[in-house]
Order: sequence, then structure tokens, then C-alpha cells
Amino acid sequence: MKIINGGVTAAKGYKAAGIYAGIKKKRKDMALVYSTVPAKAAGTFTSNVVKAAPVKWDIKVINENETVQAVVLNSGVANACTGALGEENNRKMAQAAADCLSVPAAAVLTASTGVIGKQLPMDAIVKGAELLTAALKEDTDGGLMAAEAIMTTDTYSKEAAVSFSVGGREVIIGGMAKGSGMIHPDMATMLGVITTDLAISKELLQEAIRADVKDSFNMISVDRDTSTNDSLILLANGLAGNTEITEKNEDYDNFCKALHVVTTGLAKKMAADGEGATKLLEAVVVGAKNKEEAVILSKSIITSNLVKTAVYGNDANWGRILCAMGYSGVEFDPDRVDLYVESKEGKLKLVENGMATDYSEETATKILSAKEVRAVADVKTGNGTATAWGCDLTFDYIKINADYRS
Amino acid sequence: MKIINGGVTAAKGYKAAGIYAGIKKKRKDMALVYSTVPAKAAGTFTSNVVKAAPVKWDIKVINENETVQAVVLNSGVANACTGALGEENNRKMAQAAADCLSVPAAAVLTASTGVIGKQLPMDAIVKGAELLTAALKEDTDGGLMAAEAIMTTDTYSKEAAVSFSVGGREVIIGGMAKGSGMIHPDMATMLGVITTDLAISKELLQEAIRADVKDSFNMISVDRDTSTNDSLILLANGLAGNTEITEKNEDYDNFCKALHVVTTGLAKKMAADGEGATKLLEAVVVGAKNKEEAVILSKSIITSNLVKTAVYGNDANWGRILCAMGYSGVEFDPDRVDLYVESKEGKLKLVENGMATDYSEETATKILSAKEVRAVADVKTGNGTATAWGCDLTFDYIKINADYRS
Repeated sequence: MKIINGGVTAAKGYKAAGIYAGIKKKRKDMALVYSTVPAKAAGTFTSNVVKAAPVKWDIKVINENETVQAVVLNSGVANACTGALGEENNRKMAQAAADCLSVPAAAVLTASTGVIGKQLPMDAIVKGAELLTAALKEDTDGGLMAAEAIMTTDTYSKEAAVSFSVGGREVIIGGMAKGSGMIHPDMATMLGVITTDLAISKELLQEAIRADVKDSFNMISVDRDTSTNDSLILLANGLAGNTEITEKNEDYDNFCKALHVVTTGLAKKMAADGEGATKLLEAVVVGAKNKEEAVILSKSIITSNLVKTAVYGNDANWGRILCAMGYSGVEFDPDRVDLYVESKEGKLKLVENGMATDYSEETATKILSAKEVRAVADVKTGNGTATAWGCDLTFDYIKINADYRS
Repeated sequence: MKIINGGVTAAKGYKAAGIYAGIKKKRKDMALVYSTVPAKAAGTFTSNVVKAAPVKWDIKVINENETVQAVVLNSGVANACTGALGEENNRKMAQAAADCLSVPAAAVLTASTGVIGKQLPMDAIVKGAELLTAALKEDTDGGLMAAEAIMTTDTYSKEAAVSFSVGGREVIIGGMAKGSGMIHPDMATMLGVITTDLAISKELLQEAIRADVKDSFNMISVDRDTSTNDSLILLANGLAGNTEITEKNEDYDNFCKALHVVTTGLAKKMAADGEGATKLLEAVVVGAKNKEEAVILSKSIITSNLVKTAVYGNDANWGRILCAMGYSGVEFDPDRVDLYVESKEGKLKLVENGMATDYSEETATKILSAKEVRAVADVKTGNGTATAWGCDLTFDYIKINADYRS
């Protein structure tokens, strides 16, 4: 397996574009991902009871159709809490892209992100679909344009791609995602599209993505707010020419491993670029009773506002980490916990058996001042391990969100 | 029932003091509440797996003794994650106060708040116990001194008191609490002491406080971080002279009602004075399937960072409220929800049946700019109702917590 450049256009047979349609102020706000041949589609979507119109549409399209050919996305307006008119507008957005691409509307998935409760500006959307179709490119520029167009408060676009081999054929997986705020994915991420030229059955494609998100997108959080629009879409168009994967063999395992590199690559970028964030915080829990408990403990650490503000302040306030583990709902013996902090600046044991070691605050602060910091907690109970990714909580998070709509 | 001035010294037979012992920098940091006669004691304590030494002590003392006579408290150091030495220091703190008051150590409850992981400075604590005993006062000044001495990042002290009548006798309940950060009580509040001169059995006293916190302290949150030190202690010394309450009769109900006025009074002050807060946010959910679901929905609203930042920015970003309800885990029909905002500036319906009404943003902003704002969500499913209290999330929360220890 090899990590390569690019995003949704890295694999064979995909084109993409991102343009300014007039939904937002002066920034790209619509994207299109197109497969030149029908592609198997799988997806995972928000568990929020309040589901945006595009989420409902995609669930239906993927359930009822073996293949799709395109995903049309917009930023600026989430098309959530918009009632029957919102659903009709979403259908029109799919239809507009379908007309331009000469495919049926049921071959077009949709995704929206932005303010909740506003209707889509349909004139801009319909015009945008035409502009997008004209702008489609199959090189890395196409993928980049699309990744830029789905950004909201993101400060950089997020892409990842790998190549690996199946039965002597080179297969590529590439993806894009947007994150920033209202990020606490539950079954999916805010918006993500991953494309591959692998030939694989629809059932296994769906199973692969469903299993994968548990250890990738579902392990990140910016603000513990699970959005109404979380959507992760995976397309596989088979153009790599491998024999179709129809059972869980070695090829399937290799695909899952390659997919995981792309998903965790995107997920970590989303956490690091959380609204207002200056740092990526990785929480690793080892020695938990089982994996489920390790997951709960690690997520409790990265979602604590007090841990997040301490990380922002480069303050080794480890009591807050133990406190966050303590209220997670998992039973453990606090008097056995060891705790380390780690970054490119070094590694330091702060806590041994639940009490402070004789560590140097100066060294701890130096380690915490790196852009990527890791906290490792050893619960010494069993073999359960999990890793979660979050970010610090800063003045800019407040600034961004105190008047997001204005 | 009448709301009166004062706190822990409002009821008959209680003295209190608060002094500077040298734990913190230049601010009062130790408090003592003393009942001149033995008092029945009840308490509720943190559900955090990581429990501070004073929490473990109090649970044991209350379990094993019919009465106590004092509570000694300190701020600056939480005495949590401090191992066997921490427990020994806590016992010494109780002993020091007991010696000064000429009562057994098992008649003294303890409470600590402050930095996790540091040991108590025992010289200051022992000296502090002497200073406190000398400073005890039975007037309102005594209660106020004590309330001030348990503050950490609180910006004002928190007291509440009521008087009511039992069998022709005037009974008083008065209390104090501290809050500010790491506030998401689960079975109790950060630190609270409530005193009454009521005569009541220990069993009913415990039952009353256990039932009460579900609708008072457990319904507030500043940052969704449940502390290691949450302790709510209720003392009843019987000096009101009423016939002891030993069954759930009308007198018991009247006591519960009066107690609730004191607990919600303190709880709301804690929420309003959350770290960095500029506003009290009250979330009322009506029409839920049952009370349990109303509780979950209302707490999900007040704990959302995105709702809290929008409230700070006076931004009627109602989509975030619906989103927070949607990911709470409760099933409901988003297309039936009505949503109102309300304050002394007026009341406005923002959402009807899940969609925006034609409301004026200007009016909404005016309503939200008040110091106390209320959001009311009607789920239109059943008769479940609940009220939760929180605060806005501001630049100052970040400032306070990014370098709390320095």
C-alpha cells in the first residue's frame, strides 16, 4: 500500500469540480463528483433524529439502486429543518445535476452543509449544476476544487488517497471531507466522499464502510455536537479491472486496510482543523477491560471542555483527564491508572497508579506545546485499546460560533 | 413559605465562619459550619468513579453515624487523586476541626474543591481550623464568610434561605453552594451545605435530598464535566422544636417544597455564574413522552457548546437547539416541534412544526440579549416536562481554563 497525492479524482474514471454558485459570500459553495461509469454506492449517515433532506434522499437512493453515478454537494445551507419544501428542493438539486450529466435523478446522491433552517436558493443551485458540469476535471485539480467547495469554517481542504494491489491490478482509493464545527460523528462524518476504482459487491462495500467508521470518523469530536447532515459516501466503479470481490477474502482485507488509511487520514485532518483549533489531541486508552470501554474512555477525554482548554493552554492539568475518564460511565480503579503525554518534543509519565509522578512541569509544557499531542492512559485491567482524536477549545471557537450566521 | 435573607446560619443553632488559611493566594480558602447540637446528616455525592478523599470520608461518616456537628471545607486544593496520603490528610483535617470544637472526628464532615492531584498543605489546614473556630458567628455574616471561602472561580457567593411552618413552629432552611467550572452534577453539586432547624428522621432527611437533587442540582450544567468532588450536605438539628417528622405526611411535603426553593435557588445561581458566563440559559421541554425524556432533551440543549456560543452571541440560531435535541438519544418527530425564546424583553415563537416562523431576527436578538433567557420546546407527544439550567460559553471560559493552575 502506498499513500499518494489527490482526492476523489485519484481513482480511475472519476471527475470532479467545485465552483462558486452564489449560496455563500464569495467562496466556492458547490461541488460535483462524477463517475464516468455506474458505481456501486455505500454510505453511512447521521444518527441524529433530525435528519437533513439530502440524508433522507441518499438513504433511499442507496437502498433502492445498485449503482449511482454522481454526488452533488453544496455548502452554506444545510437543508435541514426545511420541511416538505426542503425535500422537494433537494430532489430538484439531484435532478438538475442529473439533467446536466444525462443520468436519472436516482443516480445522483446529494449532500448539504451550512446553516440549519434555511431553504436552498434554487436558482443558484440549478445554475451551479451547469457550471459544475462544465468544470469537471479528472486530474487532481478536479478533486481539489471539489474539496474546497464543501468547506464551511474549515481552514484547509481535506483529501487523502492510497494505492494498493488486488490480484495484480493497481487499485486506488481517494477521498475528501469537511469538518470544523458540529463535529461529533455518529455513524458518519459531516460530509465525506470517497471514490475507488475497485470492483466489489455492493454488500461488501457497505459492510466495509460501516465497520470502518467505528474506528475512524466515529472516533473524532470537535464539540460533541452530532450534526443533522453527517454523510459519508463511498463509490466503487470497478475500473481497476480486478476480479470483483464478492467474499471476505484476503483482497477484501487489503481493501479494508487501505480504506482505513484514507478514512483515518481524513478524520484526523478534521479533528486537527476543528473550529478555532490550534492542535490535534489524540487520546489513546490501553489496558481497558475491552474495546468498548476503551472507546468510551478515550472519547470522554477528547470531548471534555476542561481537557480541551488545558491543552490549549499547554497546561499538564492531568487531573482533568482522570476526571473525564471517571465520569464516562466506565468502571475502573483510578488508583491503578498510569498517564503519559507525548509529542515530537518527547514523552513523559505524569501519573503512576493514580498519583502524580515527580515530573517536570517545564518538560510537560514543552511536550504539550507541539501541534500534535497524545495522551496515553493505561487502565491496567485488560486488553481493550482505542484511539480518539479531538482538538483544543480556544477563543476562536467562541468567536466563530457566537455569530456564525451573521 | 417565605424567602428570607441568609445562608447556612439562617436556621437556629448554626454558626459559621470563613477565613484565609494560606491555601490559595490572598483569598478566603477555608470554611466551617457548626451546629451547636448534634444534627442529623444526609448527603449526595459525585457519581464520578474518581472520588476525592473528602467524598469517601463523608459517605462513610454519614452511613455510620446518626448525627454530626460540623462541616469543614477548603478551596484551592481538591484532595482528589492523592492516594493514601490524601485520605490521611483528609482525616487530619476533620480531626483538627473536631479538636477545636471538642467533638469526635466522626462528627465532622469534610469537603474540598480546587486543583486535582495536589496534597493539602496540612500546616495551613490545622492552623485554619483554629482560626475558623475563633471566627464562628451565628448571624448572617457567619454564613456569608463561609460562602465566600468556598469560592474558586465563582464571581459571587451563593446563598439561599426560606422559612416555613411545621405544626405551628417556624422552621428555617438555609444553604450555600459554589459552582463555576467542572459543573455537571450527577447526584449532587460541586459543594453545597444546607442547614435546617427542622426535627426529622435521618431516613426521611436522606430521602428528601436524594429526590430533590434530580430536579435541582442534577438539572444544571456549566461544561458537562462531572467533578470528582461533588458534595451536597444537609444538616437538620431539630431546634425548631416541631414534633419530629417520621413519615411522609403533609409536614414532610411542606419541607420538600421549601427545600426545593433553596436548592433551585442555589442551582440557578451556580448555572448563571458558570465560568466565564454572562447569562443564565433555561431550557424548558414540554410535551415529551414522559419526564425522563424531557430531562434528557432539556439537558441536551443546555450542554451543547454550539447552543451556548449562539446564546453568548445573542444569535437565534434555533437549528442548533433542534440539532441538540435530535442527537440526545430521545426519539421524537422533528416536524412537530414548536420552539419559543423568552426573557424579560418578551416572548417569540421561532419554530412551528419543525420549520422557521416568519419571526423578526431583531426581536429575537433583543430577547436573547437579556441576562436570563429561556428556550421552550414543545415536542407535542405527551405530558413530560423538565427544566434545565445552563449558561453561555464565552471567551472568558477559555481564558479561565487555559491556564487555571498558573
